[in-house]
Amino acid sequence: MESFLYGLDLAGTFVFALSGATAGVKRGLDLFGVLVLSFVAANTGGILRDIVIGAVPPGAIQDWHYLGVSLAAGIVTFCFPSRILHRWNPILLFDAAGLALFAVSGAHKALLHGLHPVMATLLGMLTGIGGGMARDVLLSEIPTVLRAELYAVAALAGAAVVVVAKGLQCPFSVSAPAGATLCFGLRVLAIKHGWRLPVARIDEDGPKRSE
Amino acid sequence: MESFLYGLDLAGTFVFALSGATAGVKRGLDLFGVLVLSFVAANTGGILRDIVIGAVPPGAIQDWHYLGVSLAAGIVTFCFPSRILHRWNPILLFDAAGLALFAVSGAHKALLHGLHPVMATLLGMLTGIGGGMARDVLLSEIPTVLRAELYAVAALAGAAVVVVAKGLQCPFSVSAPAGATLCFGLRVLAIKHGWRLPVARIDEDGPKRSE
Amino acid sequence: MESFLYGLDLAGTFVFALSGATAGVKRGLDLFGVLVLSFVAANTGGILRDIVIGAVPPGAIQDWHYLGVSLAAGIVTFCFPSRILHRWNPILLFDAAGLALFAVSGAHKALLHGLHPVMATLLGMLTGIGGGMARDVLLSEIPTVLRAELYAVAALAGAAVVVVAKGLQCPFSVSAPAGATLCFGLRVLAIKHGWRLPVARIDEDGPKRSE
Repeated sequence: MESFLYGLDLAGTFVFALSGATAGVKRGLDLFGVLVLSFVAANTGGILRDIVIGAVPPGAIQDWHYLGVSLAAGIVTFCFPSRILHRWNPILLFDAAGLALFAVSGAHKALLHGLHPVMATLLGMLTGIGGGMARDVLLSEIPTVLRAELYAVAALAGAAVVVVAKGLQCPFSVSAPAGATLCFGLRVLAIKHGWRLPVARIDEDGPKRSE
Repeated sequence: MESFLYGLDLAGTFVFALSGATAGVKRGLDLFGVLVLSFVAANTGGILRDIVIGAVPPGAIQDWHYLGVSLAAGIVTFCFPSRILHRWNPILLFDAAGLALFAVSGAHKALLHGLHPVMATLLGMLTGIGGGMARDVLLSEIPTVLRAELYAVAALAGAAVVVVAKGLQCPFSVSAPAGATLCFGLRVLAIKHGWRLPVARIDEDGPKRSE
Repeated sequence: MESFLYGLDLAGTFVFALSGATAGVKRGLDLFGVLVLSFVAANTGGILRDIVIGAVPPGAIQDWHYLGVSLAAGIVTFCFPSRILHRWNPILLFDAAGLALFAVSGAHKALLHGLHPVMATLLGMLTGIGGGMARDVLLSEIPTVLRAELYAVAALAGAAVVVVAKGLQCPFSVSAPAGATLCFGLRVLAIKHGWRLPVARIDEDGPKRSE
């Protein structure tokens, strides 16, 4: 079970690092900038989660495998940017996969540290969206997660599956693929069909809408 | 006393969440983006304070009431944006109230954890300004606190009242309203009268000014 | 040895605070904004390092000397901006010196806390680049470190000298100046000669480059 969670985490790290590196290459950063962005996009979510649940040093700092996987993804992207950039919107796909894997493993780790189920769900979401938010903040952009199609909602749904399953005594080896699939599926369908959450309508003439 | 501090914290959370949600609605974020911004604006200051004083998991992560209050403020703002946006510059007023409440409760919590009085004052200020800074960073703007009328100074003054009162054995139930009133009053007067701190004059022709 | 490390840290704090304050003055921030930026640029790297290695409260929060040194640098910059701005690209020089001092002391502190040599090198780099990244994020710019001439590489080289020297039983009083000199020299030469890391070439027409 431990090694299953560990594998999930490394896989999520790799795909998120690809998304960070791709964004860096697109913005013309140099090799080191691309590698920093790979590491940041891949590990900030998990590092933030570990810091707030008190698991320091965070996994991604204590264990150099996370660094190694992030750098590998960054170097692959740097050497073959065209291969990666010319896939169908690959940043979004990598992002969706990383989101799904991290939401699931993040919620599980928060539960293991005894957090309240509601907050464990939220921390699963944070694990999923933290890296992408840090990536976008470093590139001086408003994070995708705050605008994109069902982004945080998908992470929340995946994390919730794990938390609810735990309450129902369902093993993590079942709930993890279920939650990850739900999150990934929701996000990909949302991208494909342009599903979006509503935006508040601001009535410029006065507070009519709520009358 | 504990429940008084807790009430202060939740009230500050609510008003700061309103300011975060309002900023999000103005920038056209979707429902989830608005809720994320509510939570971030309301809780980042306290979370940062708790992380640096070693109180993990931070209150806002351990106790789901902070999340609940933040989401409530976000949903209210999302549903009735016009009502909130058409008040006289309400973001600034909410912000001032949250600043005052957080500066006071943040300084108190830092003192309880045994920090040096100078640093407790600073952490009170950080509790007050951290959320607004995170809100602005996520929206890819230079934080208001670095430019606005007596923003951080007001928070510092409120926090200092609590710290000095503690040194004079004056109870927190007296110093808290005093500090919060001072901070809120300073900030509101500064907004009204455009009080600003000086800006450095850069002499384009050379280092004459200091000769 | 302890006091040597402490002196290094305070010196790095001062020069980084100068770089933060100068950036703030250039962007027209008020006195408090300049002081906040001084503190952030000078202390964020060390605070992040201390949080992830579990040394809370971080040195810069527990010990008010860091605050004092940061404020002194900020006030000097604010009062004599022309003197400081008219030196030859002084932000870059201060930055290089702070980078060197922090990379060395950060790697040393991470080793003392028992981190893996690879991660200690990385944390040295983070200590060096964290403050400048936070400074740039607050000013809503893409961090210099992700674009500049051999920035992170220089920090990494300086940190690596300390970590390798430790492995070879060479005392820190020897490796610290060696590492700092290497880092500072690399960075200054890189600025002077425009040495840059390669940027990925994106082939707009398709994935030809890697065929």
